[in-house]
Amino acid sequence: MIGKTVNEIKVGDVGTYARTVSEADVYLFGGVTGDLNPAHTNQVVSEKTMFKGRIAHGMLTASYISTILGMYLPGPGTIFLSFECKFTKPVQFGDTITATATAVDVNVEKNIVTFECECVNQDGKKVLTGKATVMPPR
Amino acid sequence: MIGKTVNEIKVGDVGTYARTVSEADVYLFGGVTGDLNPAHTNQVVSEKTMFKGRIAHGMLTASYISTILGMYLPGPGTIFLSFECKFTKPVQFGDTITATATAVDVNVEKNIVTFECECVNQDGKKVLTGKATVMPPR
Amino acid sequence: MIGKTVNEIKVGDVGTYARTVSEADVYLFGGVTGDLNPAHTNQVVSEKTMFKGRIAHGMLTASYISTILGMYLPGPGTIFLSFECKFTKPVQFGDTITATATAVDVNVEKNIVTFECECVNQDGKKVLTGKATVMPPR
Amino acid sequence: MIGKTVNEIKVGDVGTYARTVSEADVYLFGGVTGDLNPAHTNQVVSEKTMFKGRIAHGMLTASYISTILGMYLPGPGTIFLSFECKFTKPVQFGDTITATATAVDVNVEKNIVTFECECVNQDGKKVLTGKATVMPPR
Repeated sequence: MIGKTVNEIKVGDVGTYARTVSEADVYLFGGVTGDLNPAHTNQVVSEKTMFKGRIAHGMLTASYISTILGMYLPGPGTIFLSFECKFTKPVQFGDTITATATAVDVNVEKNIVTFECECVNQDGKKVLTGKATVMPPR
Repeated sequence: MIGKTVNEIKVGDVGTYARTVSEADVYLFGGVTGDLNPAHTNQVVSEKTMFKGRIAHGMLTASYISTILGMYLPGPGTIFLSFECKFTKPVQFGDTITATATAVDVNVEKNIVTFECECVNQDGKKVLTGKATVMPPR
Repeated sequence: MIGKTVNEIKVGDVGTYARTVSEADVYLFGGVTGDLNPAHTNQVVSEKTMFKGRIAHGMLTASYISTILGMYLPGPGTIFLSFECKFTKPVQFGDTITATATAVDVNVEKNIVTFECECVNQDGKKVLTGKATVMPPR
Repeated sequence: MIGKTVNEIKVGDVGTYARTVSEADVYLFGGVTGDLNPAHTNQVVSEKTMFKGRIAHGMLTASYISTILGMYLPGPGTIFLSFECKFTKPVQFGDTITATATAVDVNVEKNIVTFECECVNQDGKKVLTGKATVMPPR
């Protein structure tokens, strides 16, 4: 179970992870991170917001990117260096999110790969765009 | 339970969240995000890495920043716009992480606040540095 | 992150915590307490009861009072001395419960504060009434 | 799976539940109740308190009483009416708690049974004493 080395990755390679966001996902994420704010855990309060109900944590969706990098591309042994993202749309309970990370720069000398990342919902709408840099396993 | 508006926040304001990272936190985070890679869930494999054992997901620590923003400063009603971070050291099970977010720019006109963020462990070592922008509640 | 001292609390002060009770909340509560009785975890059996479906543990709702006392009023550092409550209505999955604790006696000499507590659902119906005594942090 | 009726319970009957309190129990309890205060989740902060480390929520231990009533005596079908307790000692991670509920009053006419309750740790020290009233299943 060792991921790809920098020599096995080329620009354009794509990793993916997809999941339907459950109420349990959001509540557990809130519990382990401490973020139990009403946007995520209070139906009555959140219905009065512009989002018309409870939404998932942006960082939950963002974490799907880390899932790709640590599990699939490059995969086990990867060291996560940096991450940046924009949250472009809310994610609602029951939404199915597909995350992708596409290699856009492969620096063999420094052993660093840069990925452009995005998460889209079941309607093809982008909920997150971002960038990540990692060191693949040697 | 409404957070601070942009007019109630000034440069230098600090929000904080602290927590001892438990094995259960890491496993549950792995379960809800799908990132169950051996660095986080396999003691035998992870002992052979440079980290000498299982470590927490970088995105778990990063999420403590979101906890500050959604729960304490600005607090409930905040919309998370963007986030960026560097993962500077690994977080081991049992480490106590203190996350802080310090307001460094308050744009009243656009209703946007920028925070510089960091997470330090019990030895005062930085495990994460970052930046976040949010829209406080109106 | 230290709560209010007895000198900072006065009769009439109110703390609050609110949450939509999810199926995951109830199942996890059942798992960590051992109370997995069919009223909480068996839809077929529970539909035949007077409650017409699975309900939350009374002690889950009661614990929201402890959340107020330990997190918000008095807050961190509080020592919980005693608690009593009546369970006045069942709580169903998806109900949004608002818990409040109101200081009704502040004994500065003994460093003890007494709170009257209640939990109401989204329809304003009381599901729990109670009383708690605590020692605020010094 | 139906519990005992009021006619099947007599004064002196005892129900019990015992469990070693894990770190995961406490963290999950914190997540589902919202009570993630540092006494339960921050080793560094809690070491400086009189308890010398993280402790379990009092309400977690108290919930073991509810487990007895709902699972064993009277068992499934029981309606929990009221509960009161004193928290007499802290419960630390790894403590093994034995909870007992002893029937002290059986009111056949009103279908109400009163239990005296206690929780003791592995050293036989009482951590909780209390009283509960329930309606057994008919």
